[in-house]
Amino acid sequence: MKPFFQVTDLKDVLAMVEEVLPTDSEPKPLGSTLGRVLAEPITAQEDVPPFARATMDGFAVAAASTFGASEANPAYLNVTGRIAMGEVPVKAVGPGEAMKISTGGMLPPGADAVAMVEHAAILDDTTIEVYRSVAPGQHVICAGEDLCRGETLIAAGRRLRPQDAGLMASLGITRVRVHRRPRVGIISTGDEIVPAEAKPGPGQIRDVNTHTLADLVRQAGAIPAKYGLVGDDLQRLKAVCRQAAAENDMVLISGGSSLGMRDFTVEALAELPDSRIRVHGITISPGKPTILAQSGAKLVWGLPGHVTSAMVVFTAVVRPFLDRLSGLTAEARRPPVMARLTRNLESAAGRVDFVRVRLGQGADGEILAEPILGKSGLIRTMVQADGLIAVDMNTEGLEKGDPVAVALF
Amino acid sequence: MKPFFQVTDLKDVLAMVEEVLPTDSEPKPLGSTLGRVLAEPITAQEDVPPFARATMDGFAVAAASTFGASEANPAYLNVTGRIAMGEVPVKAVGPGEAMKISTGGMLPPGADAVAMVEHAAILDDTTIEVYRSVAPGQHVICAGEDLCRGETLIAAGRRLRPQDAGLMASLGITRVRVHRRPRVGIISTGDEIVPAEAKPGPGQIRDVNTHTLADLVRQAGAIPAKYGLVGDDLQRLKAVCRQAAAENDMVLISGGSSLGMRDFTVEALAELPDSRIRVHGITISPGKPTILAQSGAKLVWGLPGHVTSAMVVFTAVVRPFLDRLSGLTAEARRPPVMARLTRNLESAAGRVDFVRVRLGQGADGEILAEPILGKSGLIRTMVQADGLIAVDMNTEGLEKGDPVAVALF
Repeated sequence: MKPFFQVTDLKDVLAMVEEVLPTDSEPKPLGSTLGRVLAEPITAQEDVPPFARATMDGFAVAAASTFGASEANPAYLNVTGRIAMGEVPVKAVGPGEAMKISTGGMLPPGADAVAMVEHAAILDDTTIEVYRSVAPGQHVICAGEDLCRGETLIAAGRRLRPQDAGLMASLGITRVRVHRRPRVGIISTGDEIVPAEAKPGPGQIRDVNTHTLADLVRQAGAIPAKYGLVGDDLQRLKAVCRQAAAENDMVLISGGSSLGMRDFTVEALAELPDSRIRVHGITISPGKPTILAQSGAKLVWGLPGHVTSAMVVFTAVVRPFLDRLSGLTAEARRPPVMARLTRNLESAAGRVDFVRVRLGQGADGEILAEPILGKSGLIRTMVQADGLIAVDMNTEGLEKGDPVAVALF
Repeated sequence: MKPFFQVTDLKDVLAMVEEVLPTDSEPKPLGSTLGRVLAEPITAQEDVPPFARATMDGFAVAAASTFGASEANPAYLNVTGRIAMGEVPVKAVGPGEAMKISTGGMLPPGADAVAMVEHAAILDDTTIEVYRSVAPGQHVICAGEDLCRGETLIAAGRRLRPQDAGLMASLGITRVRVHRRPRVGIISTGDEIVPAEAKPGPGQIRDVNTHTLADLVRQAGAIPAKYGLVGDDLQRLKAVCRQAAAENDMVLISGGSSLGMRDFTVEALAELPDSRIRVHGITISPGKPTILAQSGAKLVWGLPGHVTSAMVVFTAVVRPFLDRLSGLTAEARRPPVMARLTRNLESAAGRVDFVRVRLGQGADGEILAEPILGKSGLIRTMVQADGLIAVDMNTEGLEKGDPVAVALF
């Protein structure tokens, strides 16, 4: 048996993620930040709320006026007025006094708590009974209690979520710097491949990888740029690779799963400007014949041609590099879905096996991961699957009931 | 204690999801289907692959020619030619014969398996030794083995993923019908609220809910339409609600958390065309004062004004309605993330408590859910949180170590 290439351990490939530099940044207005990766920390420029606010409908009081109050022994308070929403109360609330207030209203001087309307009875226009004691600060958000001026609230490198837009709005931050979405060039190779729109002749099949990879790139928050199909024409492959590397932050070449095509791809990659072949085979299955070249600072991947292998390699190997390129910090990546395996899985030692799984729900609400078995060329297995699990290279397999981490597609 | 409204059990509210009709459909080309909800099943119009293909580099053979082959006793085969990629082989492979083939190549007549190049030795130009027996079908995908003509491969009501685009491409389906993305009108109310761009005066705070809800709507795959701020002006609120209900598939009104504003909202909702108030308070916390009105077939929600409550109600209550409106079937919704609770949680009986949690990783790779406690008005708690867990109304709480289902924000 002759070795075709010197394979690299998956962990050594993934360690190269650290070398990747994130894209530069651009300003984006509030309303177009969802899913974008923050390039600068968000810091509170002021206190939020800027004043003490009621969090319940009721009566603004000095908490001490209610101490000891109970159903049997209510506190009797003098109602001296009503605070309208958006109004700045100037009259202070003294001991034994109360002012009617709505949720969100500004606390008057002298008040440090709100007695809920549900715990009070109105006796007449100016008198209430309060049945429960309130503590200082109860049903109130104090000035600066939510966000404190100068505090860093969201670290750079996080993908912005809806609540982060809310935070920005609350601080009056209507523009932030986010990382530019990486552009990823996609090239399909292989003489037997025709475009999806074409009717394949005998011996031909349609290009699947361009479409799967483009959507995987979109799903990662990046922008795919399609360079179409290249047949077994080395000069053309070199030219397209060079153009794609020049125009994008990363390039994915799929196909070339046949030995001849793989050699072509390696040759084309080796001749890119300032090129180094970093990886020529990885200890994974499927996806062993994956190639990683570096042209200057840009990464160019040679992915397997099998549609399922290409997708597995993208998810398990390329995605961490793309996330880093997008500016995401390691901590900011979404956790996998934890599930329980529904059957034993055997695995060969010496490589990481990626197994497609379908998620289901167990009787007790537990999430189950059911392995989808099948030849790696079958698209069906990908469509049936929700994600991938890894069977580590140092284990002989996993057992039914084992907890597994599922990376969703 | 006087009841403010007749609250509805959460499960009864969620049962109303069944009444929601999905949006109509529109055709979309391959390349713009990611995340869209399929409105028609995808059916194979042809067999995939259309011919038997090699899945390894090697030699196309009749499997029987290799039966019994081993290192000690190899099979000697006559190499009669080489199949190029995309070529239709016409010459048959007879017993004792082999043709060189690459991964993806079309099997010649007479061949039903591929002997891997790793398990063969080339003796001369026309002779090889094969060291291992191959079974019929081994290293081959047969015609129609992946996708079978007439078979339904993706059911309507599923959100399209990258692999689904791959499936479409493999079948030459370059256009599918997907549900129109629902439009959701967003209105913020409250006299104390100013736009995010404005500098709040004393007693005023910035509008947060418009921005949080707009991004939550986007995250759900729908299109937000912002109608801005409405103060305590009933006529204007009625007019804006009517316009938003006319122009959108669903409307979210936030704010009105004060009793007066809530009354305003209910009044405005009650006067929409063909209006019914369906829900006036839900047995949940936070979010009890949620209102659901129906104007014709359109749902109009009155959400609490507290920024965290509005977000919780959207995630736990509104989102299932929006998913249904988007055309998603119940089975097609993403499963929650399962995690283990890091501390005991007390809960009041008689209501479903939603608790914000931050996800973390335990020593053994297990996902941990750490409750974020804090007043429901605090934006900070939302920014710290990754999702929500529900503490059921019939339990008194959850214990440290309990498995919990986390709905991610």
